[in-house]
Order: sequence, then C-alpha cells, then structure tokens
Amino acid sequence: MDIAAAKAALAHLELDENPTSIRAKSRDFFWYSPVLKARLDHVTADFVISPRSEAEVIEVLRVCHAHGVPVTVRGAGTGNYGQAMPLAGGCVLHMKNMVAIKAIAPGRVICEPGIVIRDLDAATRAHSGQELRMCPSTAATATIGGFIAGGSGGVGSVRWGALRDLGNIIRLRVVTMEAAPSVLEFTGEELHRVSHAYGTNGIITEVEMPLAPAYDWLGVFVTLPDFAAAAQFGADLARQDGILVKLVTVCEAPVADAYFQRFKGRVTAADHVVILMVAPHAMDGFLTFAARYPEAQVIYRSDAHDWPRDPGVAYEYGWNHTTLRALKVEPSITYLQVRYAGPDFLAKIAAVRARFGPELMQHLEVMREGGQVIYAGLTLVRFTTEDRLEEIVRIHEDLGCMIFNPHRYTLEEGGRQSVDDRQLAFKREADPQGLLNPGKMIAWDVPDWAYQGIYAYAGLRAAE
Amino acid sequence: MDIAAAKAALAHLELDENPTSIRAKSRDFFWYSPVLKARLDHVTADFVISPRSEAEVIEVLRVCHAHGVPVTVRGAGTGNYGQAMPLAGGCVLHMKNMVAIKAIAPGRVICEPGIVIRDLDAATRAHSGQELRMCPSTAATATIGGFIAGGSGGVGSVRWGALRDLGNIIRLRVVTMEAAPSVLEFTGEELHRVSHAYGTNGIITEVEMPLAPAYDWLGVFVTLPDFAAAAQFGADLARQDGILVKLVTVCEAPVADAYFQRFKGRVTAADHVVILMVAPHAMDGFLTFAARYPEAQVIYRSDAHDWPRDPGVAYEYGWNHTTLRALKVEPSITYLQVRYAGPDFLAKIAAVRARFGPELMQHLEVMREGGQVIYAGLTLVRFTTEDRLEEIVRIHEDLGCMIFNPHRYTLEEGGRQSVDDRQLAFKREADPQGLLNPGKMIAWDVPDWAYQGIYAYAGLRAAE
Repeated sequence: MDIAAAKAALAHLELDENPTSIRAKSRDFFWYSPVLKARLDHVTADFVISPRSEAEVIEVLRVCHAHGVPVTVRGAGTGNYGQAMPLAGGCVLHMKNMVAIKAIAPGRVICEPGIVIRDLDAATRAHSGQELRMCPSTAATATIGGFIAGGSGGVGSVRWGALRDLGNIIRLRVVTMEAAPSVLEFTGEELHRVSHAYGTNGIITEVEMPLAPAYDWLGVFVTLPDFAAAAQFGADLARQDGILVKLVTVCEAPVADAYFQRFKGRVTAADHVVILMVAPHAMDGFLTFAARYPEAQVIYRSDAHDWPRDPGVAYEYGWNHTTLRALKVEPSITYLQVRYAGPDFLAKIAAVRARFGPELMQHLEVMREGGQVIYAGLTLVRFTTEDRLEEIVRIHEDLGCMIFNPHRYTLEEGGRQSVDDRQLAFKREADPQGLLNPGKMIAWDVPDWAYQGIYAYAGLRAAE
Repeated sequence: MDIAAAKAALAHLELDENPTSIRAKSRDFFWYSPVLKARLDHVTADFVISPRSEAEVIEVLRVCHAHGVPVTVRGAGTGNYGQAMPLAGGCVLHMKNMVAIKAIAPGRVICEPGIVIRDLDAATRAHSGQELRMCPSTAATATIGGFIAGGSGGVGSVRWGALRDLGNIIRLRVVTMEAAPSVLEFTGEELHRVSHAYGTNGIITEVEMPLAPAYDWLGVFVTLPDFAAAAQFGADLARQDGILVKLVTVCEAPVADAYFQRFKGRVTAADHVVILMVAPHAMDGFLTFAARYPEAQVIYRSDAHDWPRDPGVAYEYGWNHTTLRALKVEPSITYLQVRYAGPDFLAKIAAVRARFGPELMQHLEVMREGGQVIYAGLTLVRFTTEDRLEEIVRIHEDLGCMIFNPHRYTLEEGGRQSVDDRQLAFKREADPQGLLNPGKMIAWDVPDWAYQGIYAYAGLRAAE
C-alpha cells in the first residue's frame, strides 16, 4: 500500500487530507451498535477523494489499484453496519459530488449515485409528480447509491417489497477495480451482484430506478391499548388492497411516550402507537377501516391537528429513526433486525414478546415479501453485555425468527449467514486484488468460516 | 302505473318513444347466458329518458314516483346479468348525457356517471397522467356509473382488489325515488348501500373515484405447455411486489388458438396462454422473472413484435372479453364466475379441471383479495342444458369453490346467495314503493326465499 504515491497521483482531484474531516468521513451510523462501537470507533481512512465524474472514479480506482490502496465507497454514511468504514484504511471514495439527474420519465429516473434521496424526490416530484418507490427513514441525508449498496428497504416497502425484489432497481452502472477498470451495466439477475454489496465488488456510478406517484402523504398516528391489537391493526391495514399507504410502523408502549418528544401529553406510557403515511385520496377509506377497530384512536393527522409542536414527517418515526430517537433519550438502547414471516407471523411476535420483559421493546414495520404482508422487527434492546445480546439473538432464532444482525460489519453476518455466490464471483472479476471495502465479505477472506462467533477481520487496522 | 301521464309530464326532456330504439336500450349483455336469454329476450321499457343533469334525474324520479312507473337505470348496457333490463317495463333512465368531468386532482376524479370509461381515462391521462385504478374489459364502451352499480372489478384488480374494497370508491352522490326525491352523499361504509346494487335503491348522479398513474401499459402474451404451470406463472408474477402489472389472465388451451383470431399461427391448440399488461418500466423485471420459467415463451410484446395484424389492447382478451371472443366463434359457449381462494387455490383449480373434460375451458384472472393473490375463474362452458349447467355449478361448490352465478338476474343469486342488509335497508328508505329496477332484489319481493331454484320475478312483464 503506497498511500503517498496514490495521493500524489490524485492530487488534482478533490482530495481531503484534513485528519478531522477524514475521520468524520470514515464513519457511518455504526455506533447504533455497542458491539461495532467497541470495535470500529478508531477506524479512519488515509485520505478522502470526492470524484466529480465517472471518469474520475475510474482514475481513482486505477491509481489505487496500481498502488495497492484499499478503496471504500460511501454516500452519506447513514448505514448502521459500518458498511462505509475503511477497516484497512486507504482511500474513502466520497460520492457527494456525483449528484446529476440524467433523465426523468414516467416510472423511472436515471441519476448519479451521490444525490441525496430527498433532493432526488424533490426533482422528480417537480418534474412529473413522481418519487422513489421506497427510501430509508434517513432520506433527508442518505444518498440513492448508498441506499442501493447498503440498504434493503424502508418507507414504501409496505407496498413494493424490498430493494432486492425484481423491478425495484432497473439498472446499475458499475466501475471495477482493475489495472484498467471496466465500466459495466447490470440489469435483471445481474443486479444482485452489486446491490447490497457494500461496494465490495465495484463502484456504482449511475442508477436507474423505478418511480411511483408522489402524493402529499398524510402522517397519521393511531393509539391502541393492546400491543397484539396494534400489530393486527397494522397488518390488516396493509392487507387492504384499496387503501394506499406508504408506511405502517407499530411501536410498543412506552416507546412513543418515552422517546418521541413531541408526542408528550398526547400519549400515555400505556399507549401502543401505529405510525402511518396515507395517501390523501385514501384517507376516507383509511378512516372507514379504522372505525372498524373501536379501540383504535386516531390521535394525529398531519393535515388537521392541534398539536402545539408539529411532530414533523411521519417516516422519521419509523424504521431506524425509531431506534435513533430512543437511543438519544436512553443511550444504552440498541436494536435487532428480525424477520417475522410465515402465516403465523403475529404468533411469532407474540411469542418473542412473551419471552422478554422490558429489556426489549417491540418495533415493527410492515413489508411485502413474495406478495404477502409480513413484519420486519427493528426491536429496541436495552443493551447490557455482548453475551446477553447474543443470547437474545439465539432466543429469537429458537422461536423461529430470522435475525439480520446489526452488530456485525460483514455482508454475511448482517444477512443470512451465508455468502452470496453472485457477489463473491463478481468480486473475483471486478476486484481481483481485494482492495474494495476490505473486510466486509467473509467469503473473500476466510472461505470456510463457520460463523462460530463474531468475525474479526484480520486486516482491521489497529487503533493508534 | 300510468305510463301516458308520466310521458306527458316528461315530454320536455330527451324522451325516446321509438320502439326499436327503446328495445335496444332495454337490453344489456344478458345474452351471454342462454338461461337469461330464454327468460329476458322480450324485455322492453315503455319509454327511455336521457337526463342531462341531476335536476332532470330528480324530475324523472319524482314524476315516475307520482305515476307508479318503474325506473331502471342504465349506462352502456355492458353488464351480463340483465341488471340494466326493465323487467316490469316502465322507464329506462339512460345516463348517456351525464358525462361531465367536474374535477381532477392527484389521485382522484369527480365526474358524472354516464361518461364512458375510456373517455374518462383519456381525460385524466391528458390532465395529469392518471387513470382509474380498475376498469372492465368493456372500458371502450362501458360507463363509470354502470361499472360501479353493476360491476365488481376487472383490469387493475390484480393490484387494487375489487370495487367493493375500501378505498376503491371515494364518494357517490345518489338521488332517491320518493315523492320528493332526496340527494344524498355516501362515503365509507355507506358506499355499500348503492355500489353494485343495480340501481335498485337510488340513482347515482356523481362519483368520486381514486386514480392511479397511467402508464403506456405493454401488452405481453406468454405461452406455456402446461396449464398448471401457466396458472402458477400468473400467480407467482402477481406476487412479485416490485413488478407492476395491471392484468394477469390465464387461458387454457385451446382458447387462444380457437377463439383469438389474431393469434392464428402464433399459438397451437396445445398452448396455454398468459395475457399481461406490464408497465414499461417493469419490463426488465418482468423479463427477468419470466426467464426463471424455462417453459414460458414470450410470444408477443406490444412495443416490439412482427405479428402481421396487431392484436389490439391486451385487456380485450381478458375478463369477459375472453367469453365474448369464444362465443362469437362458438355460439354454444357461455361461462361461470368462480372464486378460487384460500392457500390451496391452485389445487382447487386443478381439482375442478380434473373433474371435467372439454365441456369446460379454464379462464383465470388474478385478483387481490384481503392482501392475497387469488384467482377469479371466468370459466368457459359448452352449454347443453340448464340442468347440466346447474350440475356444473354444484360440482364446483362441492369442490369448495364459490360461484357467482351469471345465469341469474338478481343481486342475491349473482352474489353470495344472501341479501345485503345494507342495500335492503336503504331501499326501504330510498325507494319505498319499490319502483327502482324491480325484480332484481329478491329480499324486497320474497324475504323468505330459500334459493331452491332460479328466482322468477312475478312482476316480469310477459312477452307480447
């Protein structure tokens, strides 16, 4: 690794050498996890380049390849798995300058990866009343490229499923890290090579994404006195094919009362809360539906309320913003990601809930998976020790729930504990020296890894 | 019933007294059913009024109420249950002049009921790239009011469910038939009073409907050599949350070869065919999906094909246009409407198919129901006798399939063989003399009817 030579060769680009700034740009929201916080807090790159074009991306990859310098790509750094952190140092490729929108058409947009999702949505809305089908709760700061490379779904997944589902990404343009980098275009089955690959096997330089109509979504909050009833309400609502919603979030009591500051005085510690985004023209249908649940109380709708302080956009109470709000109030809180699927998914949730006391607080997000309504759990956990956290994971698994562990920084451990052969095969082609985001794909480093415990990347640069 | 007095009082309106024209305007597509054809072929009104405004509707209802003249409302007469036919004679209220579009907004349109659906869609598309969520295959001639009052779902139901589902109708404005007619506005649970009530308890004068984005839907035809595989293909596709489709029709061999003239030479008598409408931006996802089924052959896509004669819009091969095409070639063909639901719906279809030979040809339409993908069957039946048709119905029911019998002219028999109490209760309020579309609601005429056989309305005017 010849950092100095690489920097010298790239000095004509937007190069950041300020240690404070480099450290900031080497971090993401890994600190949601006390496990990752303990391991990655010192991680920092040697330098940061912010390319302005695909040609500059190619140049960075060519030069870093020549000098054996690792390259870790990042968008806004809103991921929670350390996926944008340069474990072995080297170069962070910051995509903030690549924000061009190339084309907007009915149902699709073509753009560069560094554009912030809220800006992209604003542009497609202004152009033709369209927006992305789905976005993370961090849409105000996250980039579209980061979402594709490091995310899986979010606000809108109640209708459209996950990013990995066919049709939710149309095309990706990717640069490889070779002596002479290639530029490739992926569609169809090939998309899975690089989507949700943390930039371990190529750098996305252009994306084509499907769009949905952009409505003036109403934020709606509903309370129910019983958690199981709240979970049922959310699932039932999502199964109403004619009621267009974009978000169905269920928070167990006392999450809203304890952690949502602007809910103070509007909920009690006993209120389970359902957070919704409803299309304006679906409100009559929604209210008719809600009236069928006598215990459900609509306590807020964004178009007509008397709350003294506006609570802001609804989706910033859902997905990982729920976690963020909780840990800001109670720093010991972290979370787990759970998949509750199958026809008995509500029973699974009840079983998990019955097994734990206040150590866990249920937070559910409706998703579509294979045409079915399921719940993803982003369970709030009052963290004590790593051993106990592992035990909690095992208890979930014993109860038939799949865990996507957010206390791991590898693709495999954060996923289904198995290598994605398509990603691995493509990394062999596209990054033969293993310089792209090293340490994030176990199968590359230790092909026979048996998941006996947390994977510790041998190349992790030690703290100074 | 004083016909002459009513006509005299309404002579200043658009009044049709020509017997040939009156007879034509007294008919719908009831003749798809040999059972209804035998019973209703002679049915004709005494006169037809085409009101130009809600005020004229009120006047007609007031005058006809005063003179005891029945009033049967109709749109384009594309229904198949005789729902627009004046069994007791009297006045047909033809809505062809009430075609105004009052407002178009994001996600909604407000209009009069007599507008043809294709015209309405053209207007909302031109205004803001929107269209109705769902329409019948007769959209080119059917009216929106007729669809609401006499239909249940159709093209688009694969995504949005049925018309009766919450959110698929926003608001209906209705005039009652009293000495002094009332004008009422219904939303929410009240919509069910008059939607799919055949105009038996009020006349719809304005509708507010939700809109979806209008894409340049591509027609796509796929062949498979095995019927079960074709049914599986269609259901699997509909469960792909990220692939936006508007129509998934499955036709058993040899339907396409035998009845779809422009398919000649492109399919064989052994080809089962899946007819699709796919959003342009979903085509990559669709083709990726289709490639996972090695036996599925895409034989046509409307944006790139070499068929010598363009087959026209895809939806005119689906829903009841399939039946229409078949009976034009083979006049003995009629159909049944079957609901295949539950987790084993594909097994139910297989069981029905195994039970019959060429007497039945399967025709399936994907719908959403309660958040689930199900199939509606519009099974083609080679008619022999009424008794045999009844036997076929019973066999379906014995195999666990619900039949919506299209060989009946009452709401109950065409539905779930039970009265809709909301519709009956509202008829008591809105049509105390029972003058609106008489003979279509058994519960009004014979409250203790036991469904022991086909209901024969005692007031049916005899053939001359």
